[in-house]
Amino acid sequence: MPIDINCDMGEGMDVLTLDKDEEILDYVTSINIACGYHAGNHTIMHRTVQNAIRKNIRIGAHPGYPDFQGFGRRNMDVSAEEIYNMMVYQVGALQAFVSVEKGILHHVKPHGALYNQSANDIEKATAVVNAVYDLNPAYVLYCLAGSKIVNIAKEKGLRVYEEVFSDRHYNDDGTLVSREEPNALIQTEEEMLVHVKGILTANEVMSVQQKKIQLSAQTLCIHGDGPHALTFAKKIFALRKQIG
Amino acid sequence: MPIDINCDMGEGMDVLTLDKDEEILDYVTSINIACGYHAGNHTIMHRTVQNAIRKNIRIGAHPGYPDFQGFGRRNMDVSAEEIYNMMVYQVGALQAFVSVEKGILHHVKPHGALYNQSANDIEKATAVVNAVYDLNPAYVLYCLAGSKIVNIAKEKGLRVYEEVFSDRHYNDDGTLVSREEPNALIQTEEEMLVHVKGILTANEVMSVQQKKIQLSAQTLCIHGDGPHALTFAKKIFALRKQIG
Amino acid sequence: MPIDINCDMGEGMDVLTLDKDEEILDYVTSINIACGYHAGNHTIMHRTVQNAIRKNIRIGAHPGYPDFQGFGRRNMDVSAEEIYNMMVYQVGALQAFVSVEKGILHHVKPHGALYNQSANDIEKATAVVNAVYDLNPAYVLYCLAGSKIVNIAKEKGLRVYEEVFSDRHYNDDGTLVSREEPNALIQTEEEMLVHVKGILTANEVMSVQQKKIQLSAQTLCIHGDGPHALTFAKKIFALRKQIG
Amino acid sequence: MPIDINCDMGEGMDVLTLDKDEEILDYVTSINIACGYHAGNHTIMHRTVQNAIRKNIRIGAHPGYPDFQGFGRRNMDVSAEEIYNMMVYQVGALQAFVSVEKGILHHVKPHGALYNQSANDIEKATAVVNAVYDLNPAYVLYCLAGSKIVNIAKEKGLRVYEEVFSDRHYNDDGTLVSREEPNALIQTEEEMLVHVKGILTANEVMSVQQKKIQLSAQTLCIHGDGPHALTFAKKIFALRKQIG
Repeated sequence: MPIDINCDMGEGMDVLTLDKDEEILDYVTSINIACGYHAGNHTIMHRTVQNAIRKNIRIGAHPGYPDFQGFGRRNMDVSAEEIYNMMVYQVGALQAFVSVEKGILHHVKPHGALYNQSANDIEKATAVVNAVYDLNPAYVLYCLAGSKIVNIAKEKGLRVYEEVFSDRHYNDDGTLVSREEPNALIQTEEEMLVHVKGILTANEVMSVQQKKIQLSAQTLCIHGDGPHALTFAKKIFALRKQIG
Repeated sequence: MPIDINCDMGEGMDVLTLDKDEEILDYVTSINIACGYHAGNHTIMHRTVQNAIRKNIRIGAHPGYPDFQGFGRRNMDVSAEEIYNMMVYQVGALQAFVSVEKGILHHVKPHGALYNQSANDIEKATAVVNAVYDLNPAYVLYCLAGSKIVNIAKEKGLRVYEEVFSDRHYNDDGTLVSREEPNALIQTEEEMLVHVKGILTANEVMSVQQKKIQLSAQTLCIHGDGPHALTFAKKIFALRKQIG
Repeated sequence: MPIDINCDMGEGMDVLTLDKDEEILDYVTSINIACGYHAGNHTIMHRTVQNAIRKNIRIGAHPGYPDFQGFGRRNMDVSAEEIYNMMVYQVGALQAFVSVEKGILHHVKPHGALYNQSANDIEKATAVVNAVYDLNPAYVLYCLAGSKIVNIAKEKGLRVYEEVFSDRHYNDDGTLVSREEPNALIQTEEEMLVHVKGILTANEVMSVQQKKIQLSAQTLCIHGDGPHALTFAKKIFALRKQIG
Repeated sequence: MPIDINCDMGEGMDVLTLDKDEEILDYVTSINIACGYHAGNHTIMHRTVQNAIRKNIRIGAHPGYPDFQGFGRRNMDVSAEEIYNMMVYQVGALQAFVSVEKGILHHVKPHGALYNQSANDIEKATAVVNAVYDLNPAYVLYCLAGSKIVNIAKEKGLRVYEEVFSDRHYNDDGTLVSREEPNALIQTEEEMLVHVKGILTANEVMSVQQKKIQLSAQTLCIHGDGPHALTFAKKIFALRKQIG
C-alpha cells in the first residue's frame, strides 16, 4: 500500500480560510480535523467534513488540549481520566458531523502537546488508546512512529498508522527534535524532498547527528499552511505516485 | 403512560457538586445533561451519564448557546446554519459518552435562550429539528408545550414530548411568563403543588390572568438546584405515583 | 486637523501574523486593539501595544462581546450592566499593557455587534459612555458618525471622533448598509477611492440610493486584512496627505 | 501588626452565590478576587469589588492560568513572557473595576498552579514579580511563606506578605503537602484551630512528620466555601483578635 499523506485541517476561526484548505485536499489522502478545543469550531468542522467527503479523502478527528490561546501546544498536567474524557468529547463531536453527512470516520490523531505527551507516557497513552477503542475499535490511531503508544494500541486491538513528518528533523533515537530547538524544522524545499524521498523509498530518515534511522511509517504528515504549502504538497504527492 | 419528570443536570463546573445531583436522580424519570457550551464539561458529562445509567434514568442531551458567561440564557443572533451545527456538535459529544458507557440516548432538550428562541421561530425551529433528526430519527425532542416547533418536529417524523414547568407561571396564550417579569417563578411550595396537580390530573394550568389553559404535556420539568429542590422533587414524584 | 485613519488590529490568535499588521502601521494614525473577548489575547495585545508605541501611533481599546466563535459580530441580548462591566474589564486589561509600556491610551472603539447595538440604543449607548467616562474622562470615544451615541457621549463630557468607513456602503439616513445585504461592502478599489475622496474633501458620501449624505467625521476606518489592504492603505494615506 | 486574614473570592459563575461570599467579609481583612481566567467574570468581579469597598476590606487581584475547566489548578508549560502577559491582563482588568469604584488595589496573589509553579521557579517567579512591579510598585505580593519568590520580590523592591494556610498540612521543608496526597488538607476543626494558633502565637507549624517549622507569615489564607467555612472563619477571626 502506498503511504498515506495526512494534513491537519480546519484549524482557523475564519470560515473564509476554508478555500485555501480546499485546494490542498487534492494532494493528500487523509485529513485530521480540529475539534474545537485547541482550534476550529462546529461550523468549520461541518464544512471541512463536507469538503473531505466531496473529495473522497479519509477523515480523521484531531482532538487537542483545551488550550485555545496556546493552540494546544503547551504541556498540561491532566489526569488520565481527563484525557480519556476530552478525547471522547471531541471525537464524539466530530463523528456526529461525519454521521449527519453519511460519511465514515477513519482515524484519530491527537494534536500537539496531547500527541507528544501521550506518545511515551504509558498512563496517558493508555487513556488515549482506551478512548479511541471505546468509541469504535475500527478507528485507526495515528501516532508517532516508534513511540510507546504504538504497542499499547496494538495490544488493545487498535489498528495503528505510525506517522513521520515531512518537515521535522529527527534525533538519533527516532524522536522529533523539539520545537524549542532552532533546528526543529526542515527549512528548504530541497532538503525536504530528500527527507521525504528517504521515507517513501527506504523507510529511512537521516538524524541531525547524521545517523540513518529506520522508521516504519504508514502515514506522512504535511502542512497545509505557510506560503509554500501547496507547491510542496504537489511535489510530495507526485513523488508518492511515482514511487507507488 | 404516567408523565415523564425531567431535570437539567451536570450544569456545574465543580465535579464535587455531582453528589447533590445524584440524590435527585431517585425522583425523576429523565435528565438533560449540559454539553459544555452554556455549562458543564467533558468530565461532568461522563460522570453524569454514568450516574444516570446506574440509576436507570432516561438520558437526554441539553445543548445551549456558546455563552458560558450568560449561562446560555441570553438571546443571540445566530443563523440557522450555526444552530444546526452547535446542536450536532453538542449532542454528538454527549452521545459519545453514552456510547462508551453502552447506554442509550433518549432525547434532546435545547437549553435556555436556544429553547425559547427556537420554540416559535420557524427557521430556528427547523434547524433544531433537522439536527436532531439527522443525528438519529429515534431521538425524542423535548419542547415547549403548544409551541410551533411541536408540529415542525412531528411533520419531520420526530417524536415529541411537550413540556410543562413545575415552577413557572403561564400567560393566557400558554407561553411562559418571561424571566424578566417579577412573577415569572412560582414561589411557594403550596402554589407549586396546586400547579403540578393541575398538570398531572387535568392537563391544565391556571394563567397569571386566572384563566384555565389546556396543555398537552408528556414531560414535566423540575429544578435540581435551590435549597428545597430535593424536598419538592420527592413530593412531585409521590404525587405522580399516586395519580398514576 | 487632517482626518484620523484608524485600523482594527491584533485580532488574530497567531503571534506570527503580527508582521503583517506591522507594515500597515506606517499608513494609519491610530489603531484599535482587540481585547480578548471577540479576538486577540494577552500576548498579542502586549506586542501590538509595543509596535504602536514604537511607531508613534494612537492606541485605542477595541472591546467586543464575549463571542469568540462569532468574532463579536452576533447581536446578543446583554443588559446595560453587563455592557458596562465588559467594557471596564477589556479596556482595563488593555490600559494595563499600555501602562507597563509607559504609553498613553487615546481612545475606545467598541467592536462589531457591540458597536452597532450601542450606536442607537439609548440604554446600551449610555452603558458604553459611562464605562469609558468612569475609566478615564480623557479617553476619546470612536463611534458611528451621526448615531445617537454621539450626543450621549458629548453630554456626558466625553470627546468623540465620529467615524466613517472606507469600504462600506451607506443608506440614505446615514446608517451603514447591513453586512447581511449583498451590497454592504464597496468592492473595487476605484469605487473606494471615490468614496474616500468624498469623505476627505467634502465630508460627504453617496448612498446606495444615489443620494449625497453629509457626515461629520473625525476618523476614517480602513481594514488591515485582505489581499489588497496594504496597497489600499498606502493610497488612502497619500490622499489624506495631499488633501491635508 | 496583627496578621492579615485573606480569602479567595468571586470564583463562582453564578452571581447569586455572592450572598454567601458577602457574609464572610466580616471575618477577613483582605480578599483575592478571581479575574476571569480560572474562575469569575466581569460582573462578579465588579460586584465583589463593590462589596469589599462597602465592608472596607483590602482588595487583591487573584490571577490564574487560562484554564477554566481545571479551575487553574493544572500545571501548564507557559513561558515567562506568557506569565507576564497573563498577569498584566488580569490584574489590569481588576484594577479597572477598583478604579471605577474609586477604591484602592492593595495586593496581588497568583492562584493555584500559577501560585505554586512560580513559588520556586526563578524564571516564572521573576515574570510574576516584574508584572506586579510594572503595574504598580506599591502593590503587595502575596506568596508562599519561605519560597524563592519572596526574595526575588524583595530584591525588586516589592513589598511581600508571606502566606500560610489554615487548612493545609506542611512538609518538613516548609512546602505544602501536595493536593495529590491524601493528607494535604487538615480535616477537623480542632486540628485546624491548633494549627492556626501555632501560626498566630509562635509563627510555627507542625509538619506531617511532626517537626516544628518556623514560618514568618504576614497573611493567613482561609477558605470561603465548604459547609463550615463561615463558622470556622468566625473562630479564626476571634482568635486573631484575642491574640492581637
